[in-house]
Amino acid sequence: MSSTFGSVFRVTTFGESHGQGIGAVIDGCPPRLPLSTAEIQQQLDRRRPGQSHLTTPRKESDTVSILSGVENDVTLGTPIGLFIPNSDQYPKDYGHLGNIPRPSHADYTYQQKYGIRASSGGGRSSARETAARVAAGAVAEALLKSAHGIEIVAWVASVGDYETPSPDPLEINRAAVDALPVRCPDPATAAAIEQDILAAKEDGDSLGGTIGCVCRHVPAGLGEPVFEKMEAVLAGAMLSIPATKGFEIGSGFAGTRMRGSRHNDPFVKKNSGLGTITNYSGGVQGGISNGEPILFKVAFKPVATIGKPQDTVDFDGNQVTLEARGRHDPCVLPRAVPIVESMAALALADLALRQRARG
Amino acid sequence: MSSTFGSVFRVTTFGESHGQGIGAVIDGCPPRLPLSTAEIQQQLDRRRPGQSHLTTPRKESDTVSILSGVENDVTLGTPIGLFIPNSDQYPKDYGHLGNIPRPSHADYTYQQKYGIRASSGGGRSSARETAARVAAGAVAEALLKSAHGIEIVAWVASVGDYETPSPDPLEINRAAVDALPVRCPDPATAAAIEQDILAAKEDGDSLGGTIGCVCRHVPAGLGEPVFEKMEAVLAGAMLSIPATKGFEIGSGFAGTRMRGSRHNDPFVKKNSGLGTITNYSGGVQGGISNGEPILFKVAFKPVATIGKPQDTVDFDGNQVTLEARGRHDPCVLPRAVPIVESMAALALADLALRQRARG
Amino acid sequence: MSSTFGSVFRVTTFGESHGQGIGAVIDGCPPRLPLSTAEIQQQLDRRRPGQSHLTTPRKESDTVSILSGVENDVTLGTPIGLFIPNSDQYPKDYGHLGNIPRPSHADYTYQQKYGIRASSGGGRSSARETAARVAAGAVAEALLKSAHGIEIVAWVASVGDYETPSPDPLEINRAAVDALPVRCPDPATAAAIEQDILAAKEDGDSLGGTIGCVCRHVPAGLGEPVFEKMEAVLAGAMLSIPATKGFEIGSGFAGTRMRGSRHNDPFVKKNSGLGTITNYSGGVQGGISNGEPILFKVAFKPVATIGKPQDTVDFDGNQVTLEARGRHDPCVLPRAVPIVESMAALALADLALRQRARG
Amino acid sequence: MSSTFGSVFRVTTFGESHGQGIGAVIDGCPPRLPLSTAEIQQQLDRRRPGQSHLTTPRKESDTVSILSGVENDVTLGTPIGLFIPNSDQYPKDYGHLGNIPRPSHADYTYQQKYGIRASSGGGRSSARETAARVAAGAVAEALLKSAHGIEIVAWVASVGDYETPSPDPLEINRAAVDALPVRCPDPATAAAIEQDILAAKEDGDSLGGTIGCVCRHVPAGLGEPVFEKMEAVLAGAMLSIPATKGFEIGSGFAGTRMRGSRHNDPFVKKNSGLGTITNYSGGVQGGISNGEPILFKVAFKPVATIGKPQDTVDFDGNQVTLEARGRHDPCVLPRAVPIVESMAALALADLALRQRARG
Repeated sequence: MSSTFGSVFRVTTFGESHGQGIGAVIDGCPPRLPLSTAEIQQQLDRRRPGQSHLTTPRKESDTVSILSGVENDVTLGTPIGLFIPNSDQYPKDYGHLGNIPRPSHADYTYQQKYGIRASSGGGRSSARETAARVAAGAVAEALLKSAHGIEIVAWVASVGDYETPSPDPLEINRAAVDALPVRCPDPATAAAIEQDILAAKEDGDSLGGTIGCVCRHVPAGLGEPVFEKMEAVLAGAMLSIPATKGFEIGSGFAGTRMRGSRHNDPFVKKNSGLGTITNYSGGVQGGISNGEPILFKVAFKPVATIGKPQDTVDFDGNQVTLEARGRHDPCVLPRAVPIVESMAALALADLALRQRARG
Repeated sequence: MSSTFGSVFRVTTFGESHGQGIGAVIDGCPPRLPLSTAEIQQQLDRRRPGQSHLTTPRKESDTVSILSGVENDVTLGTPIGLFIPNSDQYPKDYGHLGNIPRPSHADYTYQQKYGIRASSGGGRSSARETAARVAAGAVAEALLKSAHGIEIVAWVASVGDYETPSPDPLEINRAAVDALPVRCPDPATAAAIEQDILAAKEDGDSLGGTIGCVCRHVPAGLGEPVFEKMEAVLAGAMLSIPATKGFEIGSGFAGTRMRGSRHNDPFVKKNSGLGTITNYSGGVQGGISNGEPILFKVAFKPVATIGKPQDTVDFDGNQVTLEARGRHDPCVLPRAVPIVESMAALALADLALRQRARG
Repeated sequence: MSSTFGSVFRVTTFGESHGQGIGAVIDGCPPRLPLSTAEIQQQLDRRRPGQSHLTTPRKESDTVSILSGVENDVTLGTPIGLFIPNSDQYPKDYGHLGNIPRPSHADYTYQQKYGIRASSGGGRSSARETAARVAAGAVAEALLKSAHGIEIVAWVASVGDYETPSPDPLEINRAAVDALPVRCPDPATAAAIEQDILAAKEDGDSLGGTIGCVCRHVPAGLGEPVFEKMEAVLAGAMLSIPATKGFEIGSGFAGTRMRGSRHNDPFVKKNSGLGTITNYSGGVQGGISNGEPILFKVAFKPVATIGKPQDTVDFDGNQVTLEARGRHDPCVLPRAVPIVESMAALALADLALRQRARG
Repeated sequence: MSSTFGSVFRVTTFGESHGQGIGAVIDGCPPRLPLSTAEIQQQLDRRRPGQSHLTTPRKESDTVSILSGVENDVTLGTPIGLFIPNSDQYPKDYGHLGNIPRPSHADYTYQQKYGIRASSGGGRSSARETAARVAAGAVAEALLKSAHGIEIVAWVASVGDYETPSPDPLEINRAAVDALPVRCPDPATAAAIEQDILAAKEDGDSLGGTIGCVCRHVPAGLGEPVFEKMEAVLAGAMLSIPATKGFEIGSGFAGTRMRGSRHNDPFVKKNSGLGTITNYSGGVQGGISNGEPILFKVAFKPVATIGKPQDTVDFDGNQVTLEARGRHDPCVLPRAVPIVESMAALALADLALRQRARG
């Protein structure tokens, strides 16, 4: 199921960076859900390149069409086909790479796996592929909001050495995140990150960072032990995003340094049942949501495409110096925010429908 | 597919901590693979309780039977049924918990999800469930070794604040890991950890930590973009293990602080093709193995069962003080080593067979 | 997914005819369903050999154990493990076959597919495998009865040239079917069939026939277009039973000779909505149940194991005359009745839960 | 997995009869397979309406585009997106049906299942959906031909009471089938059928019939016991085609009247191993192909759309007389030929790749 995600709410994506376009088919979306092209486009616009001086100057409109499954802005319960034509292809930019696998890109591994690879750009391994996820994720989000009032908000939690102070998980919202082009909700940190990104750009270099994400109003009971626990599904979803290297939920790696007596989250009476006083668990226990906010973090490596010359070898093993051309982001973190939200939405939508089957 | 893992090499597990036993069915294991009960038992013995003074004194023999799919120590290509009877059940130990959901356990979430839960112990959420994974993982390992010479070695990379110096990924082996009961291959760190565990035990408290793992001789080309990339499948596999809170591959979270010019792994000519000089990628690029060692780390929270009294509420919201009884590990890390290896083996076996289908 | 059936209510079976036993794991059965070993055993008893003078004299008790997923006769929502030990193995009966693939058995094809096969009997291809389906089917039936009041009744609709007059689909029940050992609800036809079976037995020969089946009180709306339509799932389920060669629903092959003006089922007002006057559709339209009884028929070839000598070749292509030994049914139809019911139950249970996920 | 077929070679279809168009995504097609739009279009042209005086006069060009996964007429191993825009929509033709569910159509059941349905025509239940299957099937066929030299040929085996004499399964080919518009390879029968179709058309009525199909050069060893046996997968595939009511393989229903001593297929030495003298098995034994031609038959009911007035009720249960308008086929059998071939190709392609994973 390489290009399919989910088992009841199922998304299949297709498309290369330089073909006719990219798209997604959503099978299993419940019928009678209000859904418009506009709300899908809105989230796509947050992902597209060329939004600010911090991202690639490539202009791609990323305009989505709904091919099927929706009539009069309501879902029919049949597969929803989504398509985004490729507009800004520039296939020649990559011609000079010819026989050289770019370091820490997928050129070498695609060639090893398939014995062939797209002639231009990253093909299927390009970050462009994530546009289809964002389009599909917007549908999942519409479902989660309609069915449970679930809210999903991600933000830039760090870039390089600059860490954003943890926002209040109950208050942080997309407007606050989008207020600054860095998508870091803390202005002081955002300013430092902006300088860091511009400096890396100047150097022909790139930066990594982390995205934080909270899912609020997730009902208790979602997650499918033992292999599709909430955290397992989220981890798999996040590590399927290009350039990711890590995932942690709740206390994460830092929690490994705590003792159990401090780390355990005591229960307390809350409105609709029990809640916990602390939330080191990150909203999941035994792989199942407990009603508290689900909190997780995703690590993104520095972008592999850099302007600086790199010493490497070509496919035949001959020593070469590679100088990248083309227009790329020095830091993908701001644009990764809607991608993380979308994968979280796809994960939750599937788990929500699976729990419904049980009821 | 909650209790099924994999799509071509597929494992389905079953069993509660206090029922007749636990087991696994492996569907899709290739025929004519030599396989004996003894090699499955060997890995199970590394997981079972009561191995040293550091783990729970519960004695469980965890003796596995092969119910089907194997004749004369060779696989038939049909489903392999594995069963491990429960021997040391002590259902009464848990009776006093009655109406109190244990903090940071799954009592509350199972009740919310299913509207019912096993009357004794963790039921399906118990760490005992992982014995079935270890049994199945031993079969996956036999396949990987036979087909590709793949070696998988995990070790205790940290407990609490004590971190093991990174071992040489090409040299570390199970004998070195098992030399000390802590399963930390560095004797000085192991000694410190041992003291820390005994101190926590004395306090009725518990500790967390991290497991490091390397998979060697994995051929280039394994991993199924875009949703079942190598790192996505490994992350999902690891976060499905009880008590895990994080996963990172290659440079992981630390790599987010590096610039691309340093983080990129330059290619170099190696024996059978290309390799990389550094391995910040952790053996994967674009979600596909590149032939270098696959390196990852898994975070385990401190054990939720502690001896200290805890203030919490019962299912009805009444304030109570909980005092745990029973016999539990103050630190699961040493026993988690074969579990991490097993889930890695299951992940790789499925990806290896899926790549074979392509060939 | 060769040994797994269903996607939400999922059954995985395992076991060879001459190993330790056969079993099934059901993942996805809803929690809080009353379920006892006795009701599973009841349906198993209808399938086991040695029930009458018409079937094989082999005595197998086929006693089922519930290994997991059920506590105090109620399901926990966790995987239900079922196991039936093999009791009457007689491995030596097959020794003389050695190098001869039995005509119209699976010896040759298993050897071609797996490069190995079980040394005794049919192994995984034995009809014994269906005991696991019947055990699992009894669980599915308990769910369908509890959730929707669904009733599933199959009967012997023909043996050789003798056809049972179509019973009233609203009235036929298991007591009527089981009244005679032939499991044909029409006494006159049953008597003729009984004579035919005894004659075939006397000749060392075998007979085929058809099983009819009705599923009543199936709510409108079950079936998953476009590839898992009700009739597609039922057809796949039935043709997975050993020795089956055909499936038809509603008017079936005979309906191809009718004109549309006669074949169309006009709608009429019924209690809870609309119904149809005729039921040539067999209870499904567009792959979805319409609330009318689901009616289908399954063709079974004559048993491949016969007492008569057969001219064939061995695996090396040498001409041989094969004389079967062992004890086999001259006609499997009476014992096929609960198998067809069980596969129908598994198919409906999965479709019912999938529709629930949509709701 | 309602709109997805297959597990390794996986096809997902989407699209309603009156939306933007219909399409398919093929995930898992091996890389480096030569594939052109032209060879997909060729099979689509055999399915499209308006081919002869026997079919609907609707003109639809059914022009396919490859959206992804192919570069320079070679597959990349990534998902292949296929799209066929809807050209001849005529949404108004259906307006008059408004509140009346057409007898033996899916209007009622879709409304019951989804609580909503497409406002024009059959929506997802329309036979138009099969164009996507034919496009995907052409890709599967290219793979099967390239990998194994497999040939798949279907023909009209009967219409109403007229039965085509069985053609030689080793000789029948598409040119012979397409020689006459009825797609019946026997000229005399074809002439009788043609008259019958024109008479039904004249009467505003419709006819059913059967399609025969042979798959040649299928290697021994394909089929996945126990639930995805060759015949189970084929039966499910065929019964997922609109208007189908039955499936039989080899001797089928007629074989139930034979005794085992006649029905068994004796083995004989053939070129590359063993073959059988007779082929009552239809090329499969124990659910696995044995190297002989795979032979099966599919029953299609008479078309539900007829010109004659029909007495029925509307959704509210009020008695009405329905008079259909629009332009429809009096008999779908000629156009069903490529659909049956396509579903057979999809089934075999998936089973072929799954067997490859085992090797």
